[in-house]
Amino acid sequence: MCFRAMPTYKLYYFNRTAVGEGIHLLLGYGDQEFEECRLKKEDWPALKPLMPFGQVPVLEIDGKQYAQSTAIARYLGRKYGLAGKDIEEDFQIDQIIEFYNDIRNRASATFHETDKNIKARIQEDNEKNHYPFMLKRLDEIITKNYGHMALGKLTWADFVFAGMYDCLKLLLHISDLDKKYPSFKKLQEKVLTIPEVKAFREKNP
Amino acid sequence: MCFRAMPTYKLYYFNRTAVGEGIHLLLGYGDQEFEECRLKKEDWPALKPLMPFGQVPVLEIDGKQYAQSTAIARYLGRKYGLAGKDIEEDFQIDQIIEFYNDIRNRASATFHETDKNIKARIQEDNEKNHYPFMLKRLDEIITKNYGHMALGKLTWADFVFAGMYDCLKLLLHISDLDKKYPSFKKLQEKVLTIPEVKAFREKNP
Repeated sequence: MCFRAMPTYKLYYFNRTAVGEGIHLLLGYGDQEFEECRLKKEDWPALKPLMPFGQVPVLEIDGKQYAQSTAIARYLGRKYGLAGKDIEEDFQIDQIIEFYNDIRNRASATFHETDKNIKARIQEDNEKNHYPFMLKRLDEIITKNYGHMALGKLTWADFVFAGMYDCLKLLLHISDLDKKYPSFKKLQEKVLTIPEVKAFREKNP
Repeated sequence: MCFRAMPTYKLYYFNRTAVGEGIHLLLGYGDQEFEECRLKKEDWPALKPLMPFGQVPVLEIDGKQYAQSTAIARYLGRKYGLAGKDIEEDFQIDQIIEFYNDIRNRASATFHETDKNIKARIQEDNEKNHYPFMLKRLDEIITKNYGHMALGKLTWADFVFAGMYDCLKLLLHISDLDKKYPSFKKLQEKVLTIPEVKAFREKNP
């Protein structure tokens, strides 16, 4: 008789939600036990070179390291039946995630600008020339997909968005985001109230 | 008897290489006939709202629009047998592409900064605190993969890198990039000398 040990999962990330949170929610959905390795800022310089790309989140499965938040989410999504049924459907998920990443990257770069005056200038440009189009388009797409990011049903992209949304609001720094684009908050709530996700979050507050 | 018409491909992009070029090279590798729709700057404001995310490149297959450069490249890669054999192998490709995109996004944001002083400050920070680690790591990974981005063999990620490399050099603005990280230029040459790609480029200079 042959026993196969359960695989060991470890998630390395800082003590915050941000891009690591979608991975948490996916692991919760998959009812996957894992060890939480919250990194301290003072330990990071020593740990950085040990990570595949000098970044976290990193998911370790039986000692093998999986890096880059979107790649990890896609991998877990395919594992848990949250991907498309063919390459055309997977493409639908991938394109919306890449568009969402464009928004997140823009907001993140602006948020982390250290010069106050420059930050104000970039934020003004974003609010005038970029965010209205991008956020409206994303809102329309989610609405058209019955409250999901793609395929009109639950996919791993929903977990990525839901996990990041609170942080995204902070990065975007736009008032009344929930009201202006009502599909966003609804999508987050939809994911957070999935029974497996809800149970996971109650156990891991 | 039933005849199936050849699918019609159209590629929409500006008159430059950049992130559209990897898609070109993949279409060349797949020996796919396609119509080239080079957009003029003055037409863009009218065309922007018609594109899925207000961006190009967009690949249109039988009237269906495929957007976002990495998503398109992944889709074509899977179509042409240039992806992994399972989700673990696909993950290897996805994580390196996402890391490469981190480098490209950083370089692009810096390049497009309009204030000279700020640009110089960011470039200095990049050259001191980011590029050396990131580019060295990328160089090591390509070297470890026998001159490829992932899996030790040709994948769609190689086409993305090869198509963008000339433009990436411009964006990074680092002297002697070819010499400092010799795997980069070699990888580009490896892709450009694939017989199908070479023939395509000779036909479409």
